[in-house]
Amino acid sequence: MSSTRDVIEEYCRTLEARDWDGFAAVLAEGVRYEIPQTGEVIEGREKYVRFNREYPGEWHIWPVRLVAEGEHAALWISFEVGGERVHGIGFFTVAGGLVREISDFWPEPYEPPAGREHLVTRAAVR
Amino acid sequence: MSSTRDVIEEYCRTLEARDWDGFAAVLAEGVRYEIPQTGEVIEGREKYVRFNREYPGEWHIWPVRLVAEGEHAALWISFEVGGERVHGIGFFTVAGGLVREISDFWPEPYEPPAGREHLVTRAAVR
Repeated sequence: MSSTRDVIEEYCRTLEARDWDGFAAVLAEGVRYEIPQTGEVIEGREKYVRFNREYPGEWHIWPVRLVAEGEHAALWISFEVGGERVHGIGFFTVAGGLVREISDFWPEPYEPPAGREHLVTRAAVR
Repeated sequence: MSSTRDVIEEYCRTLEARDWDGFAAVLAEGVRYEIPQTGEVIEGREKYVRFNREYPGEWHIWPVRLVAEGEHAALWISFEVGGERVHGIGFFTVAGGLVREISDFWPEPYEPPAGREHLVTRAAVR
């Protein structure tokens, strides 16, 4: 049986390659995908593959950090679409070599609140 | 030497307890904290403790998920401030029992783009 790390690496590889059969093969039939920021939930392998297949634009994913432990993994990616890059973060549950649950986050740039200028420097937003 | 998981659990415990000496004790002197969404960077233990100590409002943290592997950890928290809850996600590097680097994300609620209604259901934003 594949390790959690192996499964998430294969998830990334097949997603970037638009290898939809390979991508489906790392998902449990009842996989549950959620975006807590919007409340959106997608249930089931077929719908979740379709969601990714239909995602508009010329997009690419660049893994930044993968942390895997037991049945859990956290994946930080740089997601490029239309020449722009945003951060994406997924928390995964993997069992039996298949992805069972994904909680996905898409944090956007924002202006820092006032009052902490004495503690921070500003690098480029990235 | 404490495991990466132990270190992050102690980080959470001391932060929630406002135990600033205990919190400082899990940080490397040269700890680097960044918020990629704003470009803010805080360097050094003293400034980073002060940043947390001075953080305004009546706030609490509730760990949702911790994934630790080797020198890396990912922590998803529910952060409550002023009666509202937001998600916070940190990617940590830990070495020698001390936190060396933190990349922190604060994803906010947003309206989902049109075009995927045929695949999603909507739960409450949380």
